[in-house]
Amino acid sequence: MADTNRQWRLAKRPEGTPGEDVFEFVEADVPDPGPGEALVRTIYLSVDPYMRGRMDGTSGYADAWGVDDPLEGGVVGEVVESNGAGFEAGDIVTGNMEWADYSTAPGTALQSVNPDLAPVSTALGVLGMPGRTAYFGTREVANVQAGDTFVVTGAAGAVGSVAGQIAELTGARAVGFAGSDEKVAFVEDELGFDRCINYETTDDYRAALDEAAPDGVDAYFDNVGGPITDAVFTRLNLDARVAVCGQISMYNATELPTGPRKLRHLISTRATVEGFLVSDFAPRFSEATEQLAEWVQSGDVQYRETVTEGLESAPDAFLGLFEGENIGKQLVRVGDE
Amino acid sequence: MADTNRQWRLAKRPEGTPGEDVFEFVEADVPDPGPGEALVRTIYLSVDPYMRGRMDGTSGYADAWGVDDPLEGGVVGEVVESNGAGFEAGDIVTGNMEWADYSTAPGTALQSVNPDLAPVSTALGVLGMPGRTAYFGTREVANVQAGDTFVVTGAAGAVGSVAGQIAELTGARAVGFAGSDEKVAFVEDELGFDRCINYETTDDYRAALDEAAPDGVDAYFDNVGGPITDAVFTRLNLDARVAVCGQISMYNATELPTGPRKLRHLISTRATVEGFLVSDFAPRFSEATEQLAEWVQSGDVQYRETVTEGLESAPDAFLGLFEGENIGKQLVRVGDE
Repeated sequence: MADTNRQWRLAKRPEGTPGEDVFEFVEADVPDPGPGEALVRTIYLSVDPYMRGRMDGTSGYADAWGVDDPLEGGVVGEVVESNGAGFEAGDIVTGNMEWADYSTAPGTALQSVNPDLAPVSTALGVLGMPGRTAYFGTREVANVQAGDTFVVTGAAGAVGSVAGQIAELTGARAVGFAGSDEKVAFVEDELGFDRCINYETTDDYRAALDEAAPDGVDAYFDNVGGPITDAVFTRLNLDARVAVCGQISMYNATELPTGPRKLRHLISTRATVEGFLVSDFAPRFSEATEQLAEWVQSGDVQYRETVTEGLESAPDAFLGLFEGENIGKQLVRVGDE
Repeated sequence: MADTNRQWRLAKRPEGTPGEDVFEFVEADVPDPGPGEALVRTIYLSVDPYMRGRMDGTSGYADAWGVDDPLEGGVVGEVVESNGAGFEAGDIVTGNMEWADYSTAPGTALQSVNPDLAPVSTALGVLGMPGRTAYFGTREVANVQAGDTFVVTGAAGAVGSVAGQIAELTGARAVGFAGSDEKVAFVEDELGFDRCINYETTDDYRAALDEAAPDGVDAYFDNVGGPITDAVFTRLNLDARVAVCGQISMYNATELPTGPRKLRHLISTRATVEGFLVSDFAPRFSEATEQLAEWVQSGDVQYRETVTEGLESAPDAFLGLFEGENIGKQLVRVGDE
């Protein structure tokens, strides 16, 4: 067993776009698992846009990270030692742990990962939190139906890529927004969306929608917010559903973001706009994971991962999310499988 | 029977705030009722904010008024002649008819008004479209529950005044926004809202809400939009419901109104925002009217009407809606009861 450990801590709270200086890389002891805990060696670490909120003192829904505390996030790792945690050394598990080589966690907060089902990294992506977010957001919140036109922002990302494929599997037409020609090709050619719009090279989102979604928008899954969302609101159909999952375009804002007032578009359409967190669906997580695993195994759902190498790259991987550098799920490979 | 008729027509479509010049007052013949139609003498004419949308060529939900056509709206009147319409001369009826001394309408488009139930004018207010809008918007869309804090804009108006009273009858705490001290006194003292905020004399709507609604907002009934709505969105509680009924603050806008982006407030709260039209609840109109009549008769629901005299005053009465000149339902008295 290794006797050295490295750990990322929050050096200070950022204002606006975080710089490297909000992260501090420290050496630390390998922790001892307390009673009921396991010691876990990190294999993959997940970085996710929602973590930007955890950097602030006033996080909306996930607990704020404490200054000088180790950062936390989704991890897939190998159990090194179990102190009555209900696992054995060598088991592959997932759970919320530290941005570190080694973490401890209560056995009750860890889930087994079956390496025969799919690559273990998928427990942080298509078969994990992002996949479940797409599953419940698309089916339950946006309530997508066969024949619908379904629009999703961040279409090449970990959540949007799965959301659009679920919509297509439901019999809807999926139209995505993504930020590069490479992403557009991935979304249309590999994921099978009906259309994908490159928002970086398109000035007029309304005109782009009129062309890509000529029958209007029945269901909208919003990961991004901002001007794309403004345009979609003007194209909502009767009884349209908007699922608000994220607003990444605003997470680093230092001034109050403004835009067109949009509530009037909801009156004649009788549209519904609803925010959600995947944790609201916790009692049904196994349903989602099983269905997603079936789709992945059958090839109905494709996925991609962008992996940076080494724990030292974690801040760059995180900050890259806001630059749109990832295609599919952004992971950090911390240790060998 | 009179042999002269007067009628308001739309002279042209307005840009921004309508002036008197969009209305044309003309003499016309008293129309002959066709087969199945009744000739109705107007007693009360309703003017409503939603009519601003009918002035535009691109009305959202009610049919646009045609240029040079007679204006239409809710009328209470007396049947003068029935040509197989299923009514008798002297019957009091309500329906959509012209801004005129006399109109014809198919009997199937008219409803009887019982003068023994309540003053016949209430068929255009608390027992009519505005009352039903409040009833379904508060109970079904905002889904108000006992113990909720319920906030409504336009609290002294035809819809908001009833909405807040229904919320109080449900066991919620009603907090209103209104635009004068006289209205605030009416809302608090006569209608029995827990609190009413004078938005004309208050700079900081968030602070006013923190004081009037210290436990946050569970249900919000929005008739107005704009900066008050911006503030309410920052104070929504977990699983809050927002019913978007109207956005009168924007109906006369000539430039795209902008404001703070608000969708992010929906994520951590899992709040739902839903637009609605009262016509969606048409199959249940009698339920609403019966319940409202019971509440009016028991004194549980109070109402007020602002009545201008004479058909010639109809444009002023309509334009006054946007200046907040009315308390309760704005009516035009066109003829004797």
